[in-house]
Amino acid sequence: MASIEILDVTARDGLQNEARLFSTDEKLSLINRAIVAGAKRIEVASFAHPKYVPQMADAEAVIAGLPIETDVTYIGLVMNERGVDRALKTSVHELGLVAAASDTFATKNQNQTRDSSVAMACAMAAKTRQAGRAVNVTIATAFGCPFEGEISEEVVLDMVHRLFDAGLTEVALADTIGVANPWQVSAIFERVARELPQLSMRAHFHNTRNTGLANVHAAIQAGVKTIDVSIGGIGGCPFAPKATGNVPAEDVIYMLDRAGFQTGYDLNAVIKTAHWLSDVMEKPLPGMVSRAGGFPVPVAV
Amino acid sequence: MASIEILDVTARDGLQNEARLFSTDEKLSLINRAIVAGAKRIEVASFAHPKYVPQMADAEAVIAGLPIETDVTYIGLVMNERGVDRALKTSVHELGLVAAASDTFATKNQNQTRDSSVAMACAMAAKTRQAGRAVNVTIATAFGCPFEGEISEEVVLDMVHRLFDAGLTEVALADTIGVANPWQVSAIFERVARELPQLSMRAHFHNTRNTGLANVHAAIQAGVKTIDVSIGGIGGCPFAPKATGNVPAEDVIYMLDRAGFQTGYDLNAVIKTAHWLSDVMEKPLPGMVSRAGGFPVPVAV
Repeated sequence: MASIEILDVTARDGLQNEARLFSTDEKLSLINRAIVAGAKRIEVASFAHPKYVPQMADAEAVIAGLPIETDVTYIGLVMNERGVDRALKTSVHELGLVAAASDTFATKNQNQTRDSSVAMACAMAAKTRQAGRAVNVTIATAFGCPFEGEISEEVVLDMVHRLFDAGLTEVALADTIGVANPWQVSAIFERVARELPQLSMRAHFHNTRNTGLANVHAAIQAGVKTIDVSIGGIGGCPFAPKATGNVPAEDVIYMLDRAGFQTGYDLNAVIKTAHWLSDVMEKPLPGMVSRAGGFPVPVAV
Repeated sequence: MASIEILDVTARDGLQNEARLFSTDEKLSLINRAIVAGAKRIEVASFAHPKYVPQMADAEAVIAGLPIETDVTYIGLVMNERGVDRALKTSVHELGLVAAASDTFATKNQNQTRDSSVAMACAMAAKTRQAGRAVNVTIATAFGCPFEGEISEEVVLDMVHRLFDAGLTEVALADTIGVANPWQVSAIFERVARELPQLSMRAHFHNTRNTGLANVHAAIQAGVKTIDVSIGGIGGCPFAPKATGNVPAEDVIYMLDRAGFQTGYDLNAVIKTAHWLSDVMEKPLPGMVSRAGGFPVPVAV
């Protein structure tokens, strides 16, 4: 059966917008539980400036405390050269870069324009590869911007081409504010697959308007092989008003399990981790399979 | 642009499982608001026995109080001959019949077996047509049963064929407990479309495990032209443990609007109705676009 790679962004995109600060130990506990549940690729921290993203201030400490698993890849997010320099001093395996499809969002998120975010990502990718580390890039607001509205497919395709030409072999399109619809997702990923068949396509969706799993379905149908998720569906973006959580790990894994895809995850262990996270955060989380259970399930009546 | 018909089941499937009893006037207010928002086909009541489904005890009164709109079709749900007799004494335009794909669910829901539910639907369809009214049928638990687990595609296809052969020109497949996945949805509807191209296919999804809109997307891709929704995403089934709400009207309409389909609805009016319903029910409802707003939206920052 076909495999889909799940990229767990709980400890980064999941936590970065939460008012409650997670301690380093709590983050490490979360990451350890994700690994027990089957996570093989995890975004563990962001090297953003602590003044702007205080949740991520302990990036170095988190990475120093990670379990040494030979088959798990840890990713740290970086926005600029200072972030790359910090990341390369740690043992993190891979760096995640960010370009933004709208000038306004690029300015607010990383004090760059769209073009300078692409140029920065290309330069940082070269530097990262030179240091012997893997690298990927995410194009934020690829399906719509909270400030500028619609983003043209041409603009996104042009960015993908420039990033690919600079040697980036994995590019994610991110629906930062949860406005993508599955027909739009199909159209753009099918076009990327057609124009750049060698590129590894990744998809990053937020479930702000209930279309998150529809977009995952459309992306996979279009050839996307890696899906970003957060356990419990937590998350948001400090610089995108009203952005809500990532697509929930347990819901995506449930859907893929049911459809016969291999994800390498144990759904019950993911659900248990979501329950643990909900207890730690003292609130219900958006993930639905954590509440409803999988299927078939014995039901007491 | 392609059109998708939205069938509003709020006043029937939406309300039937709610602890709070809606008055006839409240139901009529709900239905009137749905019509203002663009509803053209509405399931307004069920002729179930009031002992089993007390929420629907006022079916006749609701139908007597409906606004006379020349372009709106009102549907009443019936399970048996007694229901048909009651319905035919009212002015309801169309009857909705129910067959069930699992024996256990058929027994609990309507005191029939799978086979007898099909036979009953065929007989009731003949009687309804003879009385000059339109008729449709829904196959419950078509994607999985809370008691029996997986339901085979063969079983469902066989039921569809028998119902079509008996003159039923619209058949819905219902995911009564929200366990369908979009690949399963594609497979079965594509097969129905191939074997019975003259049949009008309708889809009825519950969003119990976050796959509701993915299933809507898959169904439409497979040729389904009518989607059941409830405003606010309220709903459930008294005879299906843990069943939660229908796919939310506002979220489905938002997704279809964004993708360029015609639904005939005014999204803002649907959102307003969901807010009104939430106020009446004194709780937040599952629909997400009612909270997040449409797109592009001006965002205060």
